[in-house]
This record gives sequence, C-alpha cells and structure tokens, in this order.
Amino acid sequence: MTAFTRRGFISAAAGSAALALLKPSALFADDKTMKNLPSPSPDAAGSLFSALKNRRSTRDFSPKKLPDQILSDLLWAAFGVNRPDSGKRTAPSAKNQQEIDLYVATAEGLYLYDAKPHQLIQLSAEDIRSFCGMQGFVANAPVNIVYVADFARMDNMSDENKVLYSAADTGFIGQNVYLFCAVCGLATVVRGWVNRSSLAEKMALKKDQRIILSQTVGYPK
Amino acid sequence: MTAFTRRGFISAAAGSAALALLKPSALFADDKTMKNLPSPSPDAAGSLFSALKNRRSTRDFSPKKLPDQILSDLLWAAFGVNRPDSGKRTAPSAKNQQEIDLYVATAEGLYLYDAKPHQLIQLSAEDIRSFCGMQGFVANAPVNIVYVADFARMDNMSDENKVLYSAADTGFIGQNVYLFCAVCGLATVVRGWVNRSSLAEKMALKKDQRIILSQTVGYPK
Repeated sequence: MTAFTRRGFISAAAGSAALALLKPSALFADDKTMKNLPSPSPDAAGSLFSALKNRRSTRDFSPKKLPDQILSDLLWAAFGVNRPDSGKRTAPSAKNQQEIDLYVATAEGLYLYDAKPHQLIQLSAEDIRSFCGMQGFVANAPVNIVYVADFARMDNMSDENKVLYSAADTGFIGQNVYLFCAVCGLATVVRGWVNRSSLAEKMALKKDQRIILSQTVGYPK
Repeated sequence: MTAFTRRGFISAAAGSAALALLKPSALFADDKTMKNLPSPSPDAAGSLFSALKNRRSTRDFSPKKLPDQILSDLLWAAFGVNRPDSGKRTAPSAKNQQEIDLYVATAEGLYLYDAKPHQLIQLSAEDIRSFCGMQGFVANAPVNIVYVADFARMDNMSDENKVLYSAADTGFIGQNVYLFCAVCGLATVVRGWVNRSSLAEKMALKKDQRIILSQTVGYPK
C-alpha cells in the first residue's frame, strides 16, 4: 500500500503552489473548512477485467449516503496521487499540468478535492446538487463530482486546444470513476447535460475555470 | 466470460450500419483485408487497485511486437463490446454515439478496429508509425493507436462541443488502455503532439474525421 501523506491544511497549503494559485482565499481557511478523509484503501481484490466487463452507465440512484471510506477510495481512484515522490496521479494530464479539479457536491455542501494531502476543502455548506445537472436523479444522488478545468494552468495554446486537452483529461479521470464503481457495485453516469453558467455561478468559479462534465455516483436504487 | 461474436467480414459488415457509413469502400474488401483477432481473454487476476497504483506514462519502448492475444485483449479493454445484446462498450460515449474509432498502426500496416465482430480491418500495408507522432519513440514502438472522432456521427451541436465530447470520450478509452498496460506490464503514453494534418492525409481520413489523440503501446525497453 502506498504511504499517503496526511498533513494539516496549513502545511499542505504552504507546500502546494498549485493550490495556492488555485484558491488563495483557502489559505485563510480554518479547520472547520476541512473534511478529513480516511486513508484510501481500495478493494485490492476486484479485477480490472471484471471492472471492464461490468462498466456501464446507470441513472437510478438510492439517496443513501456514501461512507467516508468509499468517498476516500473513490477520489483516490479518480485522480489521487499514486506516486507521492513526484505528485503524479492515477490519471494523466496534458504536459502533467493537472488542470482538472474535482469538486464534490453532497447534501452537506460543496468540497474541493485536494489530492496531495488527500483531503476535501469545504467551500460551502449549501447543497447545490440540483444545479449539477438537468436530470431529476442528480439532485438526490449522494455525490456529484464536477470536473472543472482551470485554463489558467494550461500553457500557451488555443482555446480549442484547451477544450480538447482538458476534456480528454476529464475522460481519463471519469473512466477511473466508472471502473471503481463497477468493482464496488456503485452506480454512476457521466453527464454533459449541465447548465454550466448557472452551476459556475453557484460554485463561484473564476473566469478561467470551465466546467467540463459532471458525474453522479451513488448506490444503485 | 462474455461470449464474443466471431463472424466473417461480409456478415459483420451487413449487420453494421455504422461501419457501412464509416467505410463504404470496406464493403468491397476481401478476406485479405481482415486480421482476425483471437477471442479476448484479459488477465482475470490483475486488480483494478494495482492498475491504478501502477498507472503511468512511459516513453521507452522495445521494438518487440505485441502478440495477437495481447493486441486482442488490449483493444477489447480499450473500447470493446462488453454487452453484446446492446452493443455497448467498455467506455462511455456522449449519447452512446460511439463516435470514436481506433486505428491501429503497426509495422504491418494500418488497421481499423471493428468492435462488434472484434476484428481488425486492414486499410493499408504501409507502415505509417512515423506519422503518428513527433517523438522519436513513436516510429519504433510496435503499436500506435490513433483515436479518430467522426463528427458526422455526432448529432447537432457546435464544433466546440464536438471537440469537447469526442475528446472526453477519447479519454475514457485511453484510460482503459493505461490501466490494461499497468496490469500487463506494458509501457504506454497518450500523446497530443501529432501533426494531425499530415497523419490524416496519410490515413486518408474523410473531412468529418478528426484525429483527437494517439497512444503508443509496447513492451518497456
């Protein structure tokens, strides 16, 4: 099992220039804004083959909450740090720019996944799940991940190329979520039918941040 | 193990409207243009967790050829049919449009992966690997997958959205390739540094076909 660094937020923020650039206001956050995750310990037995065989999109979700351990494993699988020495992740990104952030909308509020310390930063206590997609199931499923690209972190390229690479990078991550769900008996669907402008406003995103896709995760109904 | 349909090309083509639309000229192909793949039988033991833990990009490839069984397993994992009744695949696509085609460039020529009968259609006997990317290793690694979106298969949406969804759909597939390689001890890297216009010309792509990314696969050096 990889050793995952567990650090307090202040030291994590001090050590993470990318995070500081991303959310300068979070540097002043206190402990109340953090949601500690248990160390990830994904099911070591589920095979990749069975995950591929069982991968599918489902749109029927139970409202039952995901335990913190499952949420932890899910986020690590999605885009966690799998090489702590270099900070590299379970999914690739163009030029290792790691421009995709995972926002997590639950009944308890909106969180930003900070991969290096493997923690969630609470951004708001409001339940914004109903803004995460146009389909009825979105508001009641326990978790909606919103994949947000920070175009400011992508070096000189055309806007079309920023869309292309950030969308591909979202796909790499989203497939990890699909396969994790297939192994764990969870339901999931990735969705593009999102009112991006109203959700971006609700999330208080910056000008350079673009919502690429959203993905709902929960127990099957 | 899912039962994979193994059919001759004529019946496969007759049964596949999508294929007919994609490559009408292939309807006139004879047996010489097909490369039969063994039934996929991916390693049932490799865990998803170890795949995620070991996923990484590598750029040092041995020129050693991949056995047909590995190539078969790789392509099934990437974007094979995992639900034969519906024709659905190991990776999602926007509105299930399945607009991404996998072209496979090897020393023996250029092939199109036809997922339903799980076969390769040989399009040319020319080795075009050196056109598949700008980096030196590309020309000598045994397999380069070229992910091509057929915009004609995507219903009414802006070109920017076609780029976004086809790139995300490429990412889902590319991550399957990454995880398969991690389990099988293969080396791989997904690449955007491709001269798309010269490669598209070499591949004789149609106007609506867009090269999204390419991915090299082989044994580590």
